[in-house]
Amino acid sequence: MRFKAVKGTRDFYPEQMALRNYIVDSWRRVSLRNGFVEFDGPVLEYLDLLTAKSGEEIASQLFSFVDRGGRQLALRPEITPTLARMVSAKINSLPRPIKWFSVPRLFRAENPQKGRLREFFQWNVDIIGADNDILADAECIFTAVDFLHEVGLTHKDIIVRIGSRPLTVAMLRAAGVSDDKMDSALAALDKRSRVSPEAFIEIATAAGIPAKSLDDVCRFQDSKDLQEIKERLSGIAAAEVELEKIRTLMEYLDDMGLSEYYQLDMHIVRGLAYYTGIVYEIFDRAGSLRAIAGGGRYDNLLKLVGGPEIGATGFGMGDAVLEILLREKGKIPELSPKLDCFVVDAEGNQLKQVIGITTKLRWEGIATDFASKPQPLRKQLTLANRRNAQYALIVQKNNIVGIKNLATGEQKNVEISRFLENPYEYLTSDN
Amino acid sequence: MRFKAVKGTRDFYPEQMALRNYIVDSWRRVSLRNGFVEFDGPVLEYLDLLTAKSGEEIASQLFSFVDRGGRQLALRPEITPTLARMVSAKINSLPRPIKWFSVPRLFRAENPQKGRLREFFQWNVDIIGADNDILADAECIFTAVDFLHEVGLTHKDIIVRIGSRPLTVAMLRAAGVSDDKMDSALAALDKRSRVSPEAFIEIATAAGIPAKSLDDVCRFQDSKDLQEIKERLSGIAAAEVELEKIRTLMEYLDDMGLSEYYQLDMHIVRGLAYYTGIVYEIFDRAGSLRAIAGGGRYDNLLKLVGGPEIGATGFGMGDAVLEILLREKGKIPELSPKLDCFVVDAEGNQLKQVIGITTKLRWEGIATDFASKPQPLRKQLTLANRRNAQYALIVQKNNIVGIKNLATGEQKNVEISRFLENPYEYLTSDN
Repeated sequence: MRFKAVKGTRDFYPEQMALRNYIVDSWRRVSLRNGFVEFDGPVLEYLDLLTAKSGEEIASQLFSFVDRGGRQLALRPEITPTLARMVSAKINSLPRPIKWFSVPRLFRAENPQKGRLREFFQWNVDIIGADNDILADAECIFTAVDFLHEVGLTHKDIIVRIGSRPLTVAMLRAAGVSDDKMDSALAALDKRSRVSPEAFIEIATAAGIPAKSLDDVCRFQDSKDLQEIKERLSGIAAAEVELEKIRTLMEYLDDMGLSEYYQLDMHIVRGLAYYTGIVYEIFDRAGSLRAIAGGGRYDNLLKLVGGPEIGATGFGMGDAVLEILLREKGKIPELSPKLDCFVVDAEGNQLKQVIGITTKLRWEGIATDFASKPQPLRKQLTLANRRNAQYALIVQKNNIVGIKNLATGEQKNVEISRFLENPYEYLTSDN
Repeated sequence: MRFKAVKGTRDFYPEQMALRNYIVDSWRRVSLRNGFVEFDGPVLEYLDLLTAKSGEEIASQLFSFVDRGGRQLALRPEITPTLARMVSAKINSLPRPIKWFSVPRLFRAENPQKGRLREFFQWNVDIIGADNDILADAECIFTAVDFLHEVGLTHKDIIVRIGSRPLTVAMLRAAGVSDDKMDSALAALDKRSRVSPEAFIEIATAAGIPAKSLDDVCRFQDSKDLQEIKERLSGIAAAEVELEKIRTLMEYLDDMGLSEYYQLDMHIVRGLAYYTGIVYEIFDRAGSLRAIAGGGRYDNLLKLVGGPEIGATGFGMGDAVLEILLREKGKIPELSPKLDCFVVDAEGNQLKQVIGITTKLRWEGIATDFASKPQPLRKQLTLANRRNAQYALIVQKNNIVGIKNLATGEQKNVEISRFLENPYEYLTSDN
């Protein structure tokens, strides 16, 4: 009997794990330097919380089940509902703005495709309760770009495409879409860039966008810049205040040095139902991959899960598309594990000494391993090199250890007891 | 409508998350310095793999469900079956010994109690395919103790209790337990320390241990040292080789400097069915908590999941009991997040400069945040202190920034443009 991994899940062998840790550690480092603190919630949540406000797309992709106590549970497909639940529960004791990040493992019961898995990790960065909402949106975008730049991607590799839910809603309303059809009309627009023009017409009319207005809606989405967006929306009173927000956002992003990293793009609508303001997705410039990240403002979500009415904004970035892009761009660094010392047994009969040295060094915080199999010295030194050890410690007769710097080949011999009195003295390589 | 966390799961608010990260980071650091490399598998596995060989206790605690494709899936309750599956799949390409660790999130559908949760983290450390099996057992025990020492616990706080599955099996066989009853008899012995003597008699006889032999079995379990264990097993031929292994293990542990950290204890049997050799559990000395960690040798497991016949040993340490013990012993360090810089707006009208400085520093890798709300300078400096910033950067008129060391109170004023040319020059505190 041979067992396999479940389709759409991943086995992280040490090599893949090192890459995952590189990505997650970089997410953490960049979050912290941007002033965010880390949180996490459970993988298991009540089904109600997760289906409540995210909309159709997420609900259809849930792994859910009834537990022995008859409770309807599900594996989290995103962490935003958990964030809303947790913040709502302690809203009065949390200092604002609440700047939180998380790196949850998420689960979606969808068909695995390139960049889409059933189990994946997603970096989430959110600001809740900021006094200057637009600055909070800009800060989240900055944090995403700061990370991408940190792992070696520049404005030549990636682009932040910025849309606006309220402007799109205003356009749809002017096009004759009724409020009860608004969510499905938005979902149809969100799909536009991923289907053929013919398929889009079918989806859009089925979703409640009048056929006669479809050209207008498409021209609005295809607008090249703020001026053109403004013209397409002329006469729609509700648009002015939202256009001003976009202008302000652009100014903040420019102040942050990101002028080359973003562009307005009204095709960006986002699939989730809870967005209420500026929305954005980050893509590879070549446009060959799915979105690397996506986010936006969701001012009503906390209220919808029983919390306060409070501004909130943030984004999520999955690990799967990011990894594909880093690989394509040759930006995955050398990640082999390293050791400080590798202890070898020159005589083949000094196991007690090898064990004593190895464990003493580990206890002192020095990463050390040893050749656990009796074999010729040359083979043990090869092993020391393969394990990326900085030093080989060669245990010899008469309680002597040779401290060999494997980069320079230089070797010092000392008494073992003297070496163990202060190993750091011998291992600080100034050579 | 108010949503709650599912019973037995945890919300990790930033304070709890910092503690979780402290524990997980320490597990990682100690694993690496002991020569282990990290792996992970999926949370979702086929139910078959998980129920196959772990025995009743685990099988009764699984969260399992049928997915849309009709597959029987479950949330992993332990990572050892995944480890066995992954190693078996690549056994020919993995250099030996395979020294792997992992920090999986695990799931058990049991009633939450002190130190027992439905979702928890567990450090797993395993050695597969070592030439010297007993040394591998000793190395795993050393690694566990190395970690506990690292987080501030000594032999005064904890004790490794070491048992032997084969010796216990030999005793049970001599007591008249048939092979088909062996698993249930072992499970009964594993429960002995947690139930009353009367309840134990009932459980043990129901499990197939003849009532007339029960005293002998109990006296064997209650043996105080190797000599007494040997006496209790006199005349049982199969015992000699296993007694020798115990003696060898003790010698290795002594060579490693752990003499005060362990004792033999034949009450230790372990609940899981797959153990085949030396087994151990780590307890607080006071004995008031559940086991902090448990492990042992499981030489048949890889073969049972379709892999090779190969020696394997390892342990798991959960985060829940550990956290309780660290708290009781006052060993939880100060873990508040820190910033390098906190940018404040002395004039209340320099937002553009504040944003520019903040984002430039973050981009350079310097952890920086800012007072996002206009408020008096004094309040902003209070905020800088509350955020544990090392420096307050006070943006003033005429493009001047005051660099104030918050520990010493010392302040230098420089032009913003000059400061941003090389911020590290101004932020390396030699004062």
